[in-house]
Amino acid sequence: MVELGVVYRSIARADADVTTRLGGFGTATVHEAMGRTGLLRPYLRPIYAGAQVSGTAVTVLLHPGDNWMLHVAAEQIRPGDIVVAAVTGEWSDGYFGELLATSFRARGARALVIDAGVRDVRALTQMQFPVWSKAISAKGTDKATLGSVNVPLVCAGALVTPGDVIVADDDGVVVVPASLARKTLDASTAREASEGDKRARLAAGVLGLDMYAMREPLQKAGLKYID
Amino acid sequence: MVELGVVYRSIARADADVTTRLGGFGTATVHEAMGRTGLLRPYLRPIYAGAQVSGTAVTVLLHPGDNWMLHVAAEQIRPGDIVVAAVTGEWSDGYFGELLATSFRARGARALVIDAGVRDVRALTQMQFPVWSKAISAKGTDKATLGSVNVPLVCAGALVTPGDVIVADDDGVVVVPASLARKTLDASTAREASEGDKRARLAAGVLGLDMYAMREPLQKAGLKYID
Amino acid sequence: MVELGVVYRSIARADADVTTRLGGFGTATVHEAMGRTGLLRPYLRPIYAGAQVSGTAVTVLLHPGDNWMLHVAAEQIRPGDIVVAAVTGEWSDGYFGELLATSFRARGARALVIDAGVRDVRALTQMQFPVWSKAISAKGTDKATLGSVNVPLVCAGALVTPGDVIVADDDGVVVVPASLARKTLDASTAREASEGDKRARLAAGVLGLDMYAMREPLQKAGLKYID
Amino acid sequence: MVELGVVYRSIARADADVTTRLGGFGTATVHEAMGRTGLLRPYLRPIYAGAQVSGTAVTVLLHPGDNWMLHVAAEQIRPGDIVVAAVTGEWSDGYFGELLATSFRARGARALVIDAGVRDVRALTQMQFPVWSKAISAKGTDKATLGSVNVPLVCAGALVTPGDVIVADDDGVVVVPASLARKTLDASTAREASEGDKRARLAAGVLGLDMYAMREPLQKAGLKYID
Amino acid sequence: MVELGVVYRSIARADADVTTRLGGFGTATVHEAMGRTGLLRPYLRPIYAGAQVSGTAVTVLLHPGDNWMLHVAAEQIRPGDIVVAAVTGEWSDGYFGELLATSFRARGARALVIDAGVRDVRALTQMQFPVWSKAISAKGTDKATLGSVNVPLVCAGALVTPGDVIVADDDGVVVVPASLARKTLDASTAREASEGDKRARLAAGVLGLDMYAMREPLQKAGLKYID
Amino acid sequence: MVELGVVYRSIARADADVTTRLGGFGTATVHEAMGRTGLLRPYLRPIYAGAQVSGTAVTVLLHPGDNWMLHVAAEQIRPGDIVVAAVTGEWSDGYFGELLATSFRARGARALVIDAGVRDVRALTQMQFPVWSKAISAKGTDKATLGSVNVPLVCAGALVTPGDVIVADDDGVVVVPASLARKTLDASTAREASEGDKRARLAAGVLGLDMYAMREPLQKAGLKYID
Repeated sequence: MVELGVVYRSIARADADVTTRLGGFGTATVHEAMGRTGLLRPYLRPIYAGAQVSGTAVTVLLHPGDNWMLHVAAEQIRPGDIVVAAVTGEWSDGYFGELLATSFRARGARALVIDAGVRDVRALTQMQFPVWSKAISAKGTDKATLGSVNVPLVCAGALVTPGDVIVADDDGVVVVPASLARKTLDASTAREASEGDKRARLAAGVLGLDMYAMREPLQKAGLKYID
Repeated sequence: MVELGVVYRSIARADADVTTRLGGFGTATVHEAMGRTGLLRPYLRPIYAGAQVSGTAVTVLLHPGDNWMLHVAAEQIRPGDIVVAAVTGEWSDGYFGELLATSFRARGARALVIDAGVRDVRALTQMQFPVWSKAISAKGTDKATLGSVNVPLVCAGALVTPGDVIVADDDGVVVVPASLARKTLDASTAREASEGDKRARLAAGVLGLDMYAMREPLQKAGLKYID
Repeated sequence: MVELGVVYRSIARADADVTTRLGGFGTATVHEAMGRTGLLRPYLRPIYAGAQVSGTAVTVLLHPGDNWMLHVAAEQIRPGDIVVAAVTGEWSDGYFGELLATSFRARGARALVIDAGVRDVRALTQMQFPVWSKAISAKGTDKATLGSVNVPLVCAGALVTPGDVIVADDDGVVVVPASLARKTLDASTAREASEGDKRARLAAGVLGLDMYAMREPLQKAGLKYID
Repeated sequence: MVELGVVYRSIARADADVTTRLGGFGTATVHEAMGRTGLLRPYLRPIYAGAQVSGTAVTVLLHPGDNWMLHVAAEQIRPGDIVVAAVTGEWSDGYFGELLATSFRARGARALVIDAGVRDVRALTQMQFPVWSKAISAKGTDKATLGSVNVPLVCAGALVTPGDVIVADDDGVVVVPASLARKTLDASTAREASEGDKRARLAAGVLGLDMYAMREPLQKAGLKYID
Repeated sequence: MVELGVVYRSIARADADVTTRLGGFGTATVHEAMGRTGLLRPYLRPIYAGAQVSGTAVTVLLHPGDNWMLHVAAEQIRPGDIVVAAVTGEWSDGYFGELLATSFRARGARALVIDAGVRDVRALTQMQFPVWSKAISAKGTDKATLGSVNVPLVCAGALVTPGDVIVADDDGVVVVPASLARKTLDASTAREASEGDKRARLAAGVLGLDMYAMREPLQKAGLKYID
Repeated sequence: MVELGVVYRSIARADADVTTRLGGFGTATVHEAMGRTGLLRPYLRPIYAGAQVSGTAVTVLLHPGDNWMLHVAAEQIRPGDIVVAAVTGEWSDGYFGELLATSFRARGARALVIDAGVRDVRALTQMQFPVWSKAISAKGTDKATLGSVNVPLVCAGALVTPGDVIVADDDGVVVVPASLARKTLDASTAREASEGDKRARLAAGVLGLDMYAMREPLQKAGLKYID
């Protein structure tokens, strides 16, 4: 059962440099490097195309229709953080807009990931403040009920612990536990290194069938070619 | 029960200047200024990003798979209108495309809001004729069954009366009853005025907690900080 | 029952010139020219706006969570083809990304249509390799189970036979059977020819009511005008 | 714009006898008798199969996550009413359960139609208190915000005015404006009368093709039979 | 491209006895016996629980909002058939109700499978005429546009050819091509035979781990037990 | 990141008697008693109406399309457990059917909660083995990839730790952390106790307005009555 009405001020953030470098790989590579775990549900979508970021998670648990705790969370943001917000119920209205984005940016936040809706999408796009959300809606919220800041929570189907690394791009959002950040960076680096060479060979017309030595296993599996 | 087979030629349009100025505020502000009413369901989405318009509603009631009445509606359009179309059933095919948009624009229409599908999205984007719709589909419609023009109708969950103000942007679509247009303009103006100052202060690092004097009510509500 | 574990190397492709010219008309016109048949379900959406292509279908039947056969399909691609992929189950993870796109392009493929998910959307957009898909997801797939290449299959609700013409744009995806390609081209040409003139007249303010001679049938249908 | 914070105590209810008799026809017949208008969106489903009721509408406008006004509405219920509840936002939690059903029944309510969620479904089924809802959820609501009672509102896409006739069964929910109740009853009676005879003839093997004299229009439309 | 305006009177139905016996196995067994192919999309649901049937397919292609061809199809039904109806577009209103069911039953039909909506659900349940549909809706359809009867079509994502075997139960709907009916019956019989023994052993407390000899492959795959 | 390929044999189950008694209250009461937390997403629905159970969680993490670990989990079941299964991806095919249910029951399992699909629904209903699932599908799964048993996991949006109490009925599924089971039982008991009296008073015609003393706060909030 999630704790309500609590703000944890001290959280163990993943290493800043590791966090930033993980962002360079993007979600597909990082997700693979983690053995295909850590992906938030794909219904979270970026509000504009082309953003690719990483940061350390400041988590916020909200109540349906109430964004009070986002203001409380703002104070806990440090440069390099990404705010990860979940709601204790299905909810798609607009919890976040231009003013909060201005405040979050002033505190050093790199992005927002929210399992709910946002608004002021045009202004957010002009500011280039990236947001991954479940919905877009002009309908606003109240400021009346306590949630929590920096408690572990479930966001879009994934468990996020404060301080974890968040990587987000056009393909979605991935969470990397702080304790696995460096190991995941190494695995991502290794994976990426081998891709540059592959890309060049495929561009030159080499087939994956040959590059990955698939012809024999396909034959063993019984694949028949018919002319 | 909605009247079928009727075209009302005389409708009481909201004041043109008030209508135009409401559009400058965008849906989030106008929706707030109306006490959070008037929002059409968020499944209506713009076919391209960045458009922000307002206009007076010319309403069209269509039958599933039949866009005959959009041609009838074209004649009723006056400069500054937005056509608001609903269908007497769930339907997502393409009722509207480049030719109708050309005609609507020639009549002075500023946009289309339709609780159904549209097509020719690339051409509409090149023309910069904004549309908010439920779907995009290349599938066209017939011209065989009578609906109505300029009757009150329900579009995406909201009651729209001919002549009402429609405001639409990336955050969605809001309807303002003609009788409330000026009052809503005043409330929007007041709301916006206070936002510029807030934006500057938040950008300078002031926290919403302090700017909105939230610390005391949060404490009263029992919020605990844990280091 | 679909054949599994088979690759047909010889398929009868629609005429290359006819195929290319069909692409110039876009899906709405081609779909109309076919008597409103051939449209794939509108849940297939382009990963970026503005692409408009046509090509001959190389079909691939995949298993849930397994993209092995996309590599097998790459070898069967000839310049001017579009790969059409279906899955034997509901599945939305990322079957296709930058590396496969590089390979497909090197083989001459013009696009991918897939009733599943893709990833590396930002890279695909930068490469301008167009994809129509059901979903976007960073989650990858395995390479362990045989499907088939160049068998007739159902993709997003439409039957696609290898060699058929695929036309795709922002409005969706249409399949034209190879045997009907020329006839459909003629019908599309005729339809388009009449549209240029109509567009000019509508832009000049002529009403569709008059241009299409709708006033009499509307009156016969009982339409009443009320002032 | 809907009025908030208001309870209308005097509403013009449709004739009780007409209301009850309309219920005997069921939604499909009544909907046809009204020219295929008045149907609420089919996502409203009964919480148990087999209920068929009618009643006069007492309307309730609720706020997301807040069922306070259902208690206010209870006092306005008279024997033969059906409560019709809408929410000023998308919301699926459980606004209504066994206790409110007990109270509504004690007041004479015949059913609830709600564009949101309900709970205590097993108890409601045992009580045989019929409910048509958008969702089922154990999650409850607050009692803190004013909505309205007996204002016209949009419920599941249809305009419902207090006192209108509501007919509901396994096929959905239909609203009949009070002013059209008797006319709709007559049309329903006429429609039903002709169906008994048709049913007997079809059961005896007569084809609809012959009974409805469809062969000639089908032939004219160009239908070809191929042996 | 599907043929429109055509009725094929002579179709090659699968063997009646084989068809009936396939029904006894249910969809899960038949689907497995076919190598996990042939399943229609799971959004098709029975209108009441507990029905399990099989029959030979009479196919009907309908237009959105038009059920004329269901009347044409009725004449083509022979005892033991199941009518399989698809629509040339997304459509969820009620194409079929009590009167058509009475006629279909009088002709010997065993069930309806329809990729659209139906109505009169209570009456159909009382008649025990089984229907698998995409939706339930009181909204009816017109009789104005030609489709086809007994052409191959795509229903809920699967290709159905007239005369194929349809098996349907609470788990969904499976199509077995007529040419594969006997082979699928044999495979189903073999599969079922082995299940009776397994059921008894599992009920007696034997673990699947032992019965299926899974412990060694699990160990090889690296499964670790931790006390 | 979830551990893969691991089976924890020793888990701390909540007290058996407390667990059983919590089941008697049902999900609505237990969810309220926990401060409205612990509810799994409402898309989990029972496969048949009327079941109400509780048990201690044995958790299973599955891969898409692979139910191998359900067999591994069977061995870890003790009388009074409920198996809670999650999948590392969106997946709706049938992971579970009659044979596994026979085995689970033989081991003493009371139910299955699965964030995926099941099949053999008719047999499961006849056996009265209750299941809450996301989907029903005849499509089966493989046995090839390791997941885990008795690791903490996210199921339908809620964190479930092995040994937690699961309560499920027609209103959904709630998880009670083992450490909070007794406290939640006390709170549920208190809540239920007060409801019997309320039910009697409401049935006698007392209004909630009076019973809950709502008239004054409603008046303070500004509610206006209009005759």
